Amino acid sequence: MSTGMNRRVHVNDVAPRDGLQMEKHFVPTEDKIAFIDALSDCGFDRIEATSFVSAKAIPALRDAEIVMQRIRRKPGVTYTVLVPNLRGMERAIESRADELNLVMSCSESHNRANLGMSRAGSLGQLLEVVRQAGRAAIRCNVSLSTAFGCPFEGEVPIAEVRRLAGEVMQGGAASLTLCDTTGMADPAQVERVIGAISAAVPLPQLTIHLHDTRGMGLANALAALRSGVQHFDASCAGLGGCPYAPGASGNISSELLVHMLDSMGVESGVDLDRLLDVAAIVPRLIERELPNPLLAAGPRSRRYPLPEGVVRTAEAPLRAA
Amino acid sequence: MSTGMNRRVHVNDVAPRDGLQMEKHFVPTEDKIAFIDALSDCGFDRIEATSFVSAKAIPALRDAEIVMQRIRRKPGVTYTVLVPNLRGMERAIESRADELNLVMSCSESHNRANLGMSRAGSLGQLLEVVRQAGRAAIRCNVSLSTAFGCPFEGEVPIAEVRRLAGEVMQGGAASLTLCDTTGMADPAQVERVIGAISAAVPLPQLTIHLHDTRGMGLANALAALRSGVQHFDASCAGLGGCPYAPGASGNISSELLVHMLDSMGVESGVDLDRLLDVAAIVPRLIERELPNPLLAAGPRSRRYPLPEGVVRTAEAPLRAA
Repeated sequence: MSTGMNRRVHVNDVAPRDGLQMEKHFVPTEDKIAFIDALSDCGFDRIEATSFVSAKAIPALRDAEIVMQRIRRKPGVTYTVLVPNLRGMERAIESRADELNLVMSCSESHNRANLGMSRAGSLGQLLEVVRQAGRAAIRCNVSLSTAFGCPFEGEVPIAEVRRLAGEVMQGGAASLTLCDTTGMADPAQVERVIGAISAAVPLPQLTIHLHDTRGMGLANALAALRSGVQHFDASCAGLGGCPYAPGASGNISSELLVHMLDSMGVESGVDLDRLLDVAAIVPRLIERELPNPLLAAGPRSRRYPLPEGVVRTAEAPLRAA
Repeated sequence: MSTGMNRRVHVNDVAPRDGLQMEKHFVPTEDKIAFIDALSDCGFDRIEATSFVSAKAIPALRDAEIVMQRIRRKPGVTYTVLVPNLRGMERAIESRADELNLVMSCSESHNRANLGMSRAGSLGQLLEVVRQAGRAAIRCNVSLSTAFGCPFEGEVPIAEVRRLAGEVMQGGAASLTLCDTTGMADPAQVERVIGAISAAVPLPQLTIHLHDTRGMGLANALAALRSGVQHFDASCAGLGGCPYAPGASGNISSELLVHMLDSMGVESGVDLDRLLDVAAIVPRLIERELPNPLLAAGPRSRRYPLPEGVVRTAEAPLRAA
């Protein structure tokens, strides 16, 4: 084992928010609640349950209040919600969210495309939310999008990521998430960026949010793990996409992450069998097919029957070539 | 960068053999030749071109002689072929193969299921091929299947892998491939197994053959890379499957591997753009759809156009929250 790897990490399942917000089909409120309750029973430390944005902006999550009111709050699980502004903060606090997740981008173009304002505007706004939430004793996590590359601008200077991370933490955020929003990160870069921001964000306050857009999701998770990262975002069934690349996959799947952690002897607290049962109902939830490699092949612990005619015996004598 | 990682690695594209052998559709001989020629132009060091097995056993590759006769041999590229026995060896040598690839399993059940005989039988037979090929001055690589787990037996003791690797190398094999035949490896195990066999197989003679059945393909490649591995098998477009898990993916895709290596600054000699052009024609070749994440999203260097209405400007003044 490399130095720095923890034997216990924490997984935040973001499927109910980050996954469902992209779906065209409106998932009925009762189904969302059952989904979140099922995830609670899997053993996740944190679940991103919904988003307090305007119903016009994201109709898929227009039922945020009812969801937060009716989910079963499992002791020990942090129910976090995305909040875009002060109005969202008020709604989230009223709905007894445990934590607010605030978002801005590391690159100017992506911030404008995604949030409709400049980074300076977003930073000011989210730090104001952090201050006011602090008065209500609600902790805020800040998610920095495009921390590993921007689909419009390309490379994002590490110095920019470090500067923003520093401002956010100094501004009172309890924790920070570095997001590989469109799956541009590579393992060497993950190590570089984590190293660069370590002075600004202690590892216990850092989450890594990875996408599997280009097949490197778990390789990047491995690099983060080896760098001492303790907190990972992931999404049940890999829900969530890449808005700029139709057909491309999105968030790393929770079950693939947990399966890798289990295989490596890293404890996540998540019960893989239960999680696979939940992942199996996701296509019904969203009313579309969603390829799932771990459901297709089964976990590595699955044993397949021997083909017919092959017997388990001691070694046969050497056969002539 | 971790210690031991090489700045130059070598990729063997196994799609023409390991990929096509599984396809139900017979790929016309001319198409196979064009496919191999196109791969030659991508910059691979090694291409597994075909298999000299009986036409009855693998009808998909019944045109091995014609393929080997008509492909354009690019200087510097090793054209390797799979050979199951002495008869196959003779055919392969007659066809001017540069190298023979011989296969057996690390687990008894898989060897019996896959090769119809005991491991002792297979070992004796393949060492006889190694000896006779040596007289014809043809080098042999031995691929050890199920080196990271067996779909029938589960864990495969590392001591067994080490023992077989030792016997094979002492028996005169020029090099050895450790195969994660059904995608059961995890990164920690990859490091353990490579460490365990290092006395028997020097790194320049070792290839790692990974499957992406459970999403860990590139994470395992990263672990191998960090362990100093210099040779990787991979398959254009991810061709090849897992015979025991319908719908599960097989070999790691050459383009995803090369894309990760490129991103990390590790040279493979393979031109990613050319390779993507070749990968794009694979579905036509095999007459079925094959999801390709890198073709869907594009390499990380791709820039997407800004959404309408978003302008690239200097930062706007702070907007009121």
